[in-house]
Amino acid sequence: MKIRPATDMDCDAIWTIFHHVVAAGDTYALDPQMSREDALAYWFAPGTHTYVAEGDAVGDGVAVPGKPTASPTIIRAPQILGTYILRPNGSGGGSHVANAGFMVSAGARGKGIGRAMAKHCLNEARRLGFRAMQFNFVISTNTSAIRLWKQLSFGIVGTLPGAFRHPDKGYVDVYVMYRSLLD
Amino acid sequence: MKIRPATDMDCDAIWTIFHHVVAAGDTYALDPQMSREDALAYWFAPGTHTYVAEGDAVGDGVAVPGKPTASPTIIRAPQILGTYILRPNGSGGGSHVANAGFMVSAGARGKGIGRAMAKHCLNEARRLGFRAMQFNFVISTNTSAIRLWKQLSFGIVGTLPGAFRHPDKGYVDVYVMYRSLLD
Repeated sequence: MKIRPATDMDCDAIWTIFHHVVAAGDTYALDPQMSREDALAYWFAPGTHTYVAEGDAVGDGVAVPGKPTASPTIIRAPQILGTYILRPNGSGGGSHVANAGFMVSAGARGKGIGRAMAKHCLNEARRLGFRAMQFNFVISTNTSAIRLWKQLSFGIVGTLPGAFRHPDKGYVDVYVMYRSLLD
Repeated sequence: MKIRPATDMDCDAIWTIFHHVVAAGDTYALDPQMSREDALAYWFAPGTHTYVAEGDAVGDGVAVPGKPTASPTIIRAPQILGTYILRPNGSGGGSHVANAGFMVSAGARGKGIGRAMAKHCLNEARRLGFRAMQFNFVISTNTSAIRLWKQLSFGIVGTLPGAFRHPDKGYVDVYVMYRSLLD
């Protein structure tokens, strides 16, 4: 798997992942009906660094034009497995704190892609000179994310009571999570 | 003093207040060099409710055309003393929590204008159906704001260590403050 800056070529794949995550309405405080245009404007906003995690995917044995087809042809086409954004959480006196958001393709979950992107993100944030990273809105029911952030040394620094209306569980708490990036 | 929705006619006054507050760089995580265009786009963003506090100001005794001028004419012209915004803090499952921001004209501080706008804001937020209000970034050195929010039943629900670089005091903590709007 390779993690690299996203390009315009990745928009279709990013939108597929984004739409699936946001339409579920259980992990992000974003409109589940958000349009592709608004979603890509958000994910590629000015000042936002956008990345994708790319892995090899085994194709469906489609024949390649001009290539022998004596045996079923296996194509290993790169596939976008996840995407993340990294940006300043504020401007002015708040611009030394980074914020980030992560999304993994439904078919690629449980394979460490979120963790790999998070580690990449922490390195990128340090490289860009950020002194800390803050997640403003970690929904308390998103236990796999919380477990990962804790393993990566994020602490819960705030609890927002009932700040998220979960589609199944009703009003649930939300955490603010934070970690220093200084050694 | 009257608090009312802002109109395009208020843009000059709002920009004067906004620029003075933000250029100081000690209370908002906004770029102190923010342009008028960006400032007004932020203060009047889609989905944001924008208000002004208007008070009578004694004018300079300017003569009114067509009026007798036997005695010095006192004009009481409305003056914008402060401005605030009210908006959802998130979308989707987070849209029931309000966020707000307040700015008072430098010459009108210490006269209860911030408090009057805050009370107006809490009423407006209830009227609009919000269930809670959250301030994401209350800088710990802004003691007059913190005192006011505490008096208005906001609690500190999170502390962001060193999340603001104060122009004089260096890295200082930031509070997340929150209150329910349900009875």
